[in-house]
Amino acid sequence: MLEDILKKVENGLMSAEEAERELATFENLGFAKVDHHRKKRQGFPEVIFGEGKTPSQILDISRAILAKNENILVTRVDKEKAEIIKKELPFFTYHEIAQLLFYKTIEETVPMKGYIAIVCAGTSDMRVAEEAALTAEAFGVEVRRFYDVGVAGIHRLLANIEEIQKATVSVVIAGMEGALPSVVGGLVSHPIIAVPTSIGYGANFQGLSALLTMLNSCASGISVVNIDNGFGGAYNAVTIHRIANQQI
Amino acid sequence: MLEDILKKVENGLMSAEEAERELATFENLGFAKVDHHRKKRQGFPEVIFGEGKTPSQILDISRAILAKNENILVTRVDKEKAEIIKKELPFFTYHEIAQLLFYKTIEETVPMKGYIAIVCAGTSDMRVAEEAALTAEAFGVEVRRFYDVGVAGIHRLLANIEEIQKATVSVVIAGMEGALPSVVGGLVSHPIIAVPTSIGYGANFQGLSALLTMLNSCASGISVVNIDNGFGGAYNAVTIHRIANQQI
Amino acid sequence: MLEDILKKVENGLMSAEEAERELATFENLGFAKVDHHRKKRQGFPEVIFGEGKTPSQILDISRAILAKNENILVTRVDKEKAEIIKKELPFFTYHEIAQLLFYKTIEETVPMKGYIAIVCAGTSDMRVAEEAALTAEAFGVEVRRFYDVGVAGIHRLLANIEEIQKATVSVVIAGMEGALPSVVGGLVSHPIIAVPTSIGYGANFQGLSALLTMLNSCASGISVVNIDNGFGGAYNAVTIHRIANQQI
Amino acid sequence: MLEDILKKVENGLMSAEEAERELATFENLGFAKVDHHRKKRQGFPEVIFGEGKTPSQILDISRAILAKNENILVTRVDKEKAEIIKKELPFFTYHEIAQLLFYKTIEETVPMKGYIAIVCAGTSDMRVAEEAALTAEAFGVEVRRFYDVGVAGIHRLLANIEEIQKATVSVVIAGMEGALPSVVGGLVSHPIIAVPTSIGYGANFQGLSALLTMLNSCASGISVVNIDNGFGGAYNAVTIHRIANQQI
Amino acid sequence: MLEDILKKVENGLMSAEEAERELATFENLGFAKVDHHRKKRQGFPEVIFGEGKTPSQILDISRAILAKNENILVTRVDKEKAEIIKKELPFFTYHEIAQLLFYKTIEETVPMKGYIAIVCAGTSDMRVAEEAALTAEAFGVEVRRFYDVGVAGIHRLLANIEEIQKATVSVVIAGMEGALPSVVGGLVSHPIIAVPTSIGYGANFQGLSALLTMLNSCASGISVVNIDNGFGGAYNAVTIHRIANQQI
Amino acid sequence: MLEDILKKVENGLMSAEEAERELATFENLGFAKVDHHRKKRQGFPEVIFGEGKTPSQILDISRAILAKNENILVTRVDKEKAEIIKKELPFFTYHEIAQLLFYKTIEETVPMKGYIAIVCAGTSDMRVAEEAALTAEAFGVEVRRFYDVGVAGIHRLLANIEEIQKATVSVVIAGMEGALPSVVGGLVSHPIIAVPTSIGYGANFQGLSALLTMLNSCASGISVVNIDNGFGGAYNAVTIHRIANQQI
Amino acid sequence: MLEDILKKVENGLMSAEEAERELATFENLGFAKVDHHRKKRQGFPEVIFGEGKTPSQILDISRAILAKNENILVTRVDKEKAEIIKKELPFFTYHEIAQLLFYKTIEETVPMKGYIAIVCAGTSDMRVAEEAALTAEAFGVEVRRFYDVGVAGIHRLLANIEEIQKATVSVVIAGMEGALPSVVGGLVSHPIIAVPTSIGYGANFQGLSALLTMLNSCASGISVVNIDNGFGGAYNAVTIHRIANQQI
Amino acid sequence: MLEDILKKVENGLMSAEEAERELATFENLGFAKVDHHRKKRQGFPEVIFGEGKTPSQILDISRAILAKNENILVTRVDKEKAEIIKKELPFFTYHEIAQLLFYKTIEETVPMKGYIAIVCAGTSDMRVAEEAALTAEAFGVEVRRFYDVGVAGIHRLLANIEEIQKATVSVVIAGMEGALPSVVGGLVSHPIIAVPTSIGYGANFQGLSALLTMLNSCASGISVVNIDNGFGGAYNAVTIHRIANQQI
Repeated sequence: MLEDILKKVENGLMSAEEAERELATFENLGFAKVDHHRKKRQGFPEVIFGEGKTPSQILDISRAILAKNENILVTRVDKEKAEIIKKELPFFTYHEIAQLLFYKTIEETVPMKGYIAIVCAGTSDMRVAEEAALTAEAFGVEVRRFYDVGVAGIHRLLANIEEIQKATVSVVIAGMEGALPSVVGGLVSHPIIAVPTSIGYGANFQGLSALLTMLNSCASGISVVNIDNGFGGAYNAVTIHRIANQQI
Repeated sequence: MLEDILKKVENGLMSAEEAERELATFENLGFAKVDHHRKKRQGFPEVIFGEGKTPSQILDISRAILAKNENILVTRVDKEKAEIIKKELPFFTYHEIAQLLFYKTIEETVPMKGYIAIVCAGTSDMRVAEEAALTAEAFGVEVRRFYDVGVAGIHRLLANIEEIQKATVSVVIAGMEGALPSVVGGLVSHPIIAVPTSIGYGANFQGLSALLTMLNSCASGISVVNIDNGFGGAYNAVTIHRIANQQI
Repeated sequence: MLEDILKKVENGLMSAEEAERELATFENLGFAKVDHHRKKRQGFPEVIFGEGKTPSQILDISRAILAKNENILVTRVDKEKAEIIKKELPFFTYHEIAQLLFYKTIEETVPMKGYIAIVCAGTSDMRVAEEAALTAEAFGVEVRRFYDVGVAGIHRLLANIEEIQKATVSVVIAGMEGALPSVVGGLVSHPIIAVPTSIGYGANFQGLSALLTMLNSCASGISVVNIDNGFGGAYNAVTIHRIANQQI
Repeated sequence: MLEDILKKVENGLMSAEEAERELATFENLGFAKVDHHRKKRQGFPEVIFGEGKTPSQILDISRAILAKNENILVTRVDKEKAEIIKKELPFFTYHEIAQLLFYKTIEETVPMKGYIAIVCAGTSDMRVAEEAALTAEAFGVEVRRFYDVGVAGIHRLLANIEEIQKATVSVVIAGMEGALPSVVGGLVSHPIIAVPTSIGYGANFQGLSALLTMLNSCASGISVVNIDNGFGGAYNAVTIHRIANQQI
Repeated sequence: MLEDILKKVENGLMSAEEAERELATFENLGFAKVDHHRKKRQGFPEVIFGEGKTPSQILDISRAILAKNENILVTRVDKEKAEIIKKELPFFTYHEIAQLLFYKTIEETVPMKGYIAIVCAGTSDMRVAEEAALTAEAFGVEVRRFYDVGVAGIHRLLANIEEIQKATVSVVIAGMEGALPSVVGGLVSHPIIAVPTSIGYGANFQGLSALLTMLNSCASGISVVNIDNGFGGAYNAVTIHRIANQQI
Repeated sequence: MLEDILKKVENGLMSAEEAERELATFENLGFAKVDHHRKKRQGFPEVIFGEGKTPSQILDISRAILAKNENILVTRVDKEKAEIIKKELPFFTYHEIAQLLFYKTIEETVPMKGYIAIVCAGTSDMRVAEEAALTAEAFGVEVRRFYDVGVAGIHRLLANIEEIQKATVSVVIAGMEGALPSVVGGLVSHPIIAVPTSIGYGANFQGLSALLTMLNSCASGISVVNIDNGFGGAYNAVTIHRIANQQI
Repeated sequence: MLEDILKKVENGLMSAEEAERELATFENLGFAKVDHHRKKRQGFPEVIFGEGKTPSQILDISRAILAKNENILVTRVDKEKAEIIKKELPFFTYHEIAQLLFYKTIEETVPMKGYIAIVCAGTSDMRVAEEAALTAEAFGVEVRRFYDVGVAGIHRLLANIEEIQKATVSVVIAGMEGALPSVVGGLVSHPIIAVPTSIGYGANFQGLSALLTMLNSCASGISVVNIDNGFGGAYNAVTIHRIANQQI
Repeated sequence: MLEDILKKVENGLMSAEEAERELATFENLGFAKVDHHRKKRQGFPEVIFGEGKTPSQILDISRAILAKNENILVTRVDKEKAEIIKKELPFFTYHEIAQLLFYKTIEETVPMKGYIAIVCAGTSDMRVAEEAALTAEAFGVEVRRFYDVGVAGIHRLLANIEEIQKATVSVVIAGMEGALPSVVGGLVSHPIIAVPTSIGYGANFQGLSALLTMLNSCASGISVVNIDNGFGGAYNAVTIHRIANQQI
């Protein structure tokens, strides 16, 4: 691209001034392929981290995204905030458990094959699990939910293991001692994104216990995101899932 | 006992002075039933914590115990120290992996029924597991070892679960993420003593990870001892095992 | 059981298809003896961890348990929640200090012998102590309470030590510096379950201080559960107490 | 498989006893699809964690793997240990910087397309980076190395960004403040496995600083493994890379 | 005392049974001199830790103390609670900044000589400083206050140093970086009780910063109590001050 | 100065008593040049840390400063408090985002040359960034704001880097992983004051993550202030900026 | 003193120049009473912290102190270092367990009354206990040792409690769970200086456990010094003991 | 610069190909002003962090720098390593206490005015202080050393305060409680770079105590670098010192 511009100047097809303007954008980005890569992601919603933002800030950003005709996902929005926003932009769907607002403007033309498994230890981890599941769905990926299969009753997990094994990637969510990813990791051969939750009390230290467990897992093939980061777990899984659907 | 002494004084069978001398010991103890309880423990070895003690200190204490004709268990003795001690007291048996010295002077008259399960996640946890197993055996309790049955390969555990279920109590030892006690806890109905080990690296923080995992276990019936405390794990298990062998 | 099924197929008493259906359950569980062990626990209430659950969730789970005709214990329920639940299921008894809801449908046929000692350092640790005491009672075990016997006034403990010594197991609860289990541990020969509480301030770090104290106890025979986990402390004690009441 | 066995018994082609023996293995595993999944992994080396194992232990395990005709990868082996092992099994290749021993018995029949980018902040992180790079190569995956491209000189990274963007997955390794994955994460659209290292001093706290940075990354699409776990980073990347080479 | 009782039994002045009853109390206490020492403390108020106690609990304990005709000090009582209590027991004086309730029934007969210096870094540390000052006064000790003399303006401290030097003991209170005790420690020769406060934010970690500073002081003669423990700081100082007023 | 006084006494121009009075002040300060240095700072506002102070305390201190005819800056004042204060002293300007109250009585006679760059990673760090920016402006220094230029989108920073490079000093503010100062540090040659914020969740631990990142920065020329300390960051920058405007 | 100098100048007995020289020292100190206070301490040895100092540095400082004719105490000197030093200054006495070097040049003229109790939990805490005991003796104070009286065998403490109660102050030393000061604190009425030791392993975290225990003690009258700081514990006790021997 | 190149192409003075090559460098850097800024720094040595590098690695990098005719500073080199390096490159000067190697090829043409104060609490902090002092000198800046002026003897600091006040910037180094920067900060009006050291033991936690103290300083105008980072402290000070010598 740089070559093209310079050739045009050499051949008198472009003035030095015009070339400078053209290159300015280029310079500001400092690298040429970003846009190209962004294009591959088309259909991805733009994501707004709702925590700590006022309803009017969320509305402003949402309208800016709508103007670009893209899908919108707002995470960590409580009910009260969601209702204020929906009064202005009623097409948003609000998922109360997951605390997500979502609006789909464009459809994926070619649906992806396969599914992501969302595996979750206890019912109290469900807020994070649903944040993950709905995020993945918002990104156009099929999701299968395996909830309440914690390690203290290993048979519940084993009863579902074959369907989990057939997923392209699992997001495994657990609070308290956070042992579930290790056990799942020993039973499947695909990548596992582990999400510790802050569920627990006392020596749990707001999720530190589950986080350390997952980082120290003796099973290979497990990587970890921040405590309660259901969105991040799903985002990682979606990124992997898309690769599995691409031609290299 | 207090009553007896006072009766003797009342009846002139004992002088006030003699009674005072007798009661002095009693007073120092401050409570009368300790001895009675100690008697129940007969056959228990006296235990010396070897770490940070010189060979000559260990020899002195050992000889004092021998004079009372009791079994001796010395924990955390490295090989070099053990050899110096064995030159002086060659009847000691040294267990190198467990770093224990043991000598049995008296035999349990009535063997106890049942066994303790020593369950261990990885081969690198074996030093702690053997410290536990040999400690329990030194206390006259039958032990069954289930080693290398970590959660990343859950089938190894399931293959042995029935024999573990029949134990009176399990000592479950694990490093790294320390998830094994939670899984065992969901499969057995007897008490579990969990022993975290310092095996691991990085975010393991010298066993902190496994310790927190065990304290936060979502399975009930699990209690925890200090990191690498194989002796303590076994001691707790033996205490429980003896109760299971007693008549209340 | 597996043998029986296969024999029937061999003998034409069962079709391969029927056998497969039968074994499916078996496979899902992955181990055959769980039920057998569960039976031993009969009379145990099912336990619901009430924290973070809505009243309607607790009601749903409670009704499911009632349908199976079992006792119900709900822990960590505040007063407001309890009142909503009691409007629907008025047979529940609510213990405000311990924050427990309990309902007993079936009675233990044979009462167990002996008792558990619940030993507690200060009056502010009482919420946890009562959670432990009432839990044990819900499991059909006799409990004796020894409250406000903290180490700063050691004579209060010594005055009660004989009755504590006669228990099968002690649950020892303490906040602040958490030294009580060590002292009790030196005076009794039965197992001790230590429960740190979050009572304290400053360098207490929400119970961390007491937790570390208990894990580092120089007295043998002490194992530890999570901070404020009165339920867990009692559950462990009950498990031990039952073993002491069984024939091996 | 269960169906097959039962059919054979029904048809008298297999006795009940033979079927029981066959199913015993099945039961021990508790789930049928593991082998099937393991097959997909063929060509994967068996991995031995060398730290804390004696040369003779490593030799024993190596010989057992060789008997199964599989590739062998031994991680965390220092030079001295490696030399003892190579005396016995001279076909091993030793990589001193990465502290790896490797032996390839079988070749991948179909080479995989694409490559993994190993991106590394400083020269002192090279031990971990090489552990990752050589691990991935041992698993039959092409690797491209981008070393010494830390954030304090962002132009070094930008000069290479296009080639990194074309990888299927990046393993990004950094010590000290660990900011590199965040920056790379903003420039690529494929998954990133972040590996914190313990390089640094003072408030680095043996890699804790880099670990926290990576877990808190404001860039999406980043997941994290344990401190200094180059092997784990590569293993995760390989798992993703294989999915990208498979047909779903 | 033991001797006396035994002599009486020997001489028939007391029956064995009466002696046993008498000794029972003795045994329960386990040590004879406590009371004697308690007597030395006469004039000391009984102290109630008010935090976490209900007004009615505080009222009950207060009435019990009044019945013994002793002074009462209640710490950590907020205004609302204090008003409820004062409705019932209006003779209490409430100190709002220090959050103390106090009532003096008996007067020290002989006033003690000398004074305690309460030295305090910032105005925001005043709650703790006043808790200390009023506590010491409640124990009958003269107090001199040196407030707002933090190390960032060292001349404020130097302007008062002579009067501080003449105290028998200093209680030095500081939050944030907690450096004041070190500086005072280099300027006086009497004992210093250092009290860290939780004043600060961010890397202060609720007083941890000041606590560590004080424990690591390079000045000798400084010992430390818990974060925000103004009462404890004063109690220690009073104990020392009394010794300075006694004849050995 | 000391010399002058003594000479006067020697020459009988001053009595010993007068000299003593004069020297008393001198002694209290202990050093003579402080005032001289304070004079250099003229135009600096007096700063009140508003957190934890009541409106009436802030009013009292403000009036005392006004009496000395100096500028006033009050930090960390919430809206409610600000309104009460403004009722009494309506000339104050309140900046709601930055939570600052400011009043300028005197003007800098000679404006300083150059500007400070306030660089900020995300919109949620804006409270701290504005505290820094407005503080610097209150001290009479020109400020340029570069907000929302976090490392996950490095081109936003590069687009502004030349203007940042021309500042005398940068205050770089970031939460979450806190990587921004490292990246800026590699691109500019002037001093950088890094301010970690508490923005983030989970393993962020209230800003600890960003703090450690900044302390461990591999870029030289970066020093760090407390978490959320926008005022402190600006104060340091202003001190440096003034030096750049002085003649040595 | 200032007054005297000025009077002399006024009366022509001293030149302004001489006065200035005299006052220079005064000015450097900034406060007049330090010397006066130092005088009270006569007989106190000068203390050298030996850790991290070379033998030749210790020799240099020792000779400088000898020149002033004062006692010398060197703490934390290992055997090897001590031998090098003793070759040059053979009059030093070396205490190997306590790792102290001591030399007494001058004698206390009037011996102090009373004694300090050094109370110690386990034999492994003896290095710290002896550092404390010998330090106090070096300062000319009588010491009584009560070793190996840890809380796990409370009767050993009770047997000695009367002699401990008669001390002016106790230094109570304990590692592991560090509960001893709390128990002693409930039994004596004099001040207690608590010294945590780093004895222990695992969740002891190098003495953190004992330190937190002591800071959180529910017994009043306890203050704490740094981990393993036997010298500091004794220094505090000596300071208190001297006050008890003075006339106020 | 971009404009110039394009103009040349437009005017036929440069081919498109040549322009592309020229711009390639430009593109790699992504920003044009870096070199310009680097020029301002001329005379700055290139710095090699020696820790963890082999002598031959250091030699290679040194030779590469020499080829560019620049000064070289190698930090954290122990004596043994230094001697190997000096055999090859004997013109290096080695500073053993500071563990620095330095070689000056070019001289500053115009010496800078003013000096940096290196202020240090104790003799054991000297390694870090000398690393700072020699680093600043290597950068061509005059340094004045104020060692052993810790807060426990405040008069030593006051005796030197005027000379410290006249510096352009102070680097204040302290271990243990780290209070010195706060005190200096209250006495000077120039910027202070605080360097915590790891000197101390027990609750010092390898410098954490001093680090927290400095971050929480109640004195304004203090910013902090990593523990033991004498080089970083000096580098920051030099950056500020240069600004004070420049014309804006």
